[in-house]
Amino acid sequence: MPEESKPKAVSTKPAATKPITYADAGVDISRGDRAKDRIKYLAQKTFTRNVLGGIGGFGALYRLDLQKFKSPILVSSADGVGTKLKIAFEMGLHSSVGADLVNHCVNDIAVQGATPLFFLDYFASGKLDPEVTETVVSGLAEACKANGCALIGGETAQMPGFYQPGEYDVSGTIVGVVEKSRMLDGKGIRAGDVVLGLASSGLHTNGYSLARKIFFDEMKLKPKSRLGGLEGSIGDEMLKVHLSYGPLVLNLLKKFNPVATGKGDSANAIKGLAHITGGGFVDNIPRVLPKNCDVVIRKGSWDVLPIFQIIQANGGVPEAELYQVFNMGIGMTVIVSAEKEAAALKFIRAHGHVAWTIGGVVKGTGICQVV
Amino acid sequence: MPEESKPKAVSTKPAATKPITYADAGVDISRGDRAKDRIKYLAQKTFTRNVLGGIGGFGALYRLDLQKFKSPILVSSADGVGTKLKIAFEMGLHSSVGADLVNHCVNDIAVQGATPLFFLDYFASGKLDPEVTETVVSGLAEACKANGCALIGGETAQMPGFYQPGEYDVSGTIVGVVEKSRMLDGKGIRAGDVVLGLASSGLHTNGYSLARKIFFDEMKLKPKSRLGGLEGSIGDEMLKVHLSYGPLVLNLLKKFNPVATGKGDSANAIKGLAHITGGGFVDNIPRVLPKNCDVVIRKGSWDVLPIFQIIQANGGVPEAELYQVFNMGIGMTVIVSAEKEAAALKFIRAHGHVAWTIGGVVKGTGICQVV
Repeated sequence: MPEESKPKAVSTKPAATKPITYADAGVDISRGDRAKDRIKYLAQKTFTRNVLGGIGGFGALYRLDLQKFKSPILVSSADGVGTKLKIAFEMGLHSSVGADLVNHCVNDIAVQGATPLFFLDYFASGKLDPEVTETVVSGLAEACKANGCALIGGETAQMPGFYQPGEYDVSGTIVGVVEKSRMLDGKGIRAGDVVLGLASSGLHTNGYSLARKIFFDEMKLKPKSRLGGLEGSIGDEMLKVHLSYGPLVLNLLKKFNPVATGKGDSANAIKGLAHITGGGFVDNIPRVLPKNCDVVIRKGSWDVLPIFQIIQANGGVPEAELYQVFNMGIGMTVIVSAEKEAAALKFIRAHGHVAWTIGGVVKGTGICQVV
Repeated sequence: MPEESKPKAVSTKPAATKPITYADAGVDISRGDRAKDRIKYLAQKTFTRNVLGGIGGFGALYRLDLQKFKSPILVSSADGVGTKLKIAFEMGLHSSVGADLVNHCVNDIAVQGATPLFFLDYFASGKLDPEVTETVVSGLAEACKANGCALIGGETAQMPGFYQPGEYDVSGTIVGVVEKSRMLDGKGIRAGDVVLGLASSGLHTNGYSLARKIFFDEMKLKPKSRLGGLEGSIGDEMLKVHLSYGPLVLNLLKKFNPVATGKGDSANAIKGLAHITGGGFVDNIPRVLPKNCDVVIRKGSWDVLPIFQIIQANGGVPEAELYQVFNMGIGMTVIVSAEKEAAALKFIRAHGHVAWTIGGVVKGTGICQVV
């Protein structure tokens, strides 16, 4: 709390001859305002009937529909895009990083059974480039809409001296909701359950610092270089969008988990989900594993995407590290009862995703082994 | 959705002689893990009984207590600290930026009557410095606790090549809640109401690019320089924490707004609140003003802090711009019925805040004038 602050005598110099403005200091308010007007327009297109009051209030308002929930649990996650952004800068392509961010966040809450409600972003650059900002936010807004999530707020920061010219950072926070008895916590996982792997589109948003070192420092490639086995340039390949498994997961749970007990009732076939991000199988699967079970992932049971084969062949990265840094072609794992394995695989494929059985659950101590 | 992705022949070179690791690429997972363990410890100290499951799940879990709400509105806000961070870097003082961030967010939702529930942060640096990260997050956690808010999640990003050595960016998102009929939307504001101003501690988190230009480029000061009229160095002054008005505001509403109608019932004396941030009085007060009212702020009706006097005397910044970039000593405005002006001032002061009557509401068109 401030003390009483009476004006005091201050030693001052005469006013500078040329007036200094905020724009002189590198912050252009009107440029910021124009960009914010466009962002407002893009965001409003994602609004659902539960968004109140529009953008421009101090806080963003979202009405929680209590007719749908007896005991609502808010599930939230914050994330960034990481050094994948460098590829976007080098390629001059800014339309997909928004989807990378939103989809990553959607997946993080989907694994707990949560439906997305709303998203807030943080976009920071040295000097605001209205065109780039709009492209990034368009991507964010489209991905929010595709995931049934409202883009209700955010911050666009002009920070002279923080970011290289033409560069920026973007991060965001998602808030979703799940009925308590529908929350997926892995408690129902038992030895004998099966691990399904959902195909990723590529690196998603992890391991870019290492991948860039291998491709650009070791292999002396450029983002626009083409390489046998890849459809587009190496940059195109590295910019492939982090897939959202959100809508698929919610459909899977609706279909295969009919009973709302939250206690791993045996009628529920989907036992646990893991988003395979930084840390790979080994760090992420144990986050939903009971302490008396291990997961064994069998290498060779799925198609490793060409980009990972190139990394493996050229980087000389120890295999264990490879599997900890990269998703190796699997963006999400689904632990399902053996009984429903075939039905779940069929359901997933019918929803347009590629999937394989990639391992199983055995008695153990709560760890994941890749063999 | 990915197409079926069969492995293809890829052209590869023989494995590099020296293995490359993630650490070689500038990302130290174990360093990151150690920092995350400390963050987990700090965050857990902020947990309330509604936080479920601890940190480490994919999404953070927060149980909404429905006994308290009939029609809960979630109120959220995302923000950063801006170029105030540069002062923290130059002074080597990282303990207060977390409170700047949290308090800014708390104020943004307090003006709508919302109680904070939880906070998620995003902390990004080139190379993770565990000590600095811990200091920043400690500050975040303490400020969360002081505002009754749980720090339930976040992202700590290592982004080689993005940030200068020793630098970082930090941003965050707050989620709070207000009962719909208790939401403060300014609809009750009428000509004749009075505007109270709550003292700020200094620049709070706005106008730093301009202030730095004036102090360091024009006046050739250093952050550690001392200046007549200021208690500490110019850097100390610029690092003064953005005040939280959250607890005060919630107490004010409890005391002065007994009726839950949301329709500006005349029994409710507090009509509208504005957080004075970037854009000053002129941009922020109209965010809560009905279209048939103006606010007139009278210069000279409060004590302008010495730091603003120095800026005004030395920067040659046009006065209108000064009042749009800086808070000029007022961190929040409270529009109150004339009848309760004295009682509200007394109440605010009894809660340890400095406040003045700084203006009034007149018939108009929804703008704010500073005269």
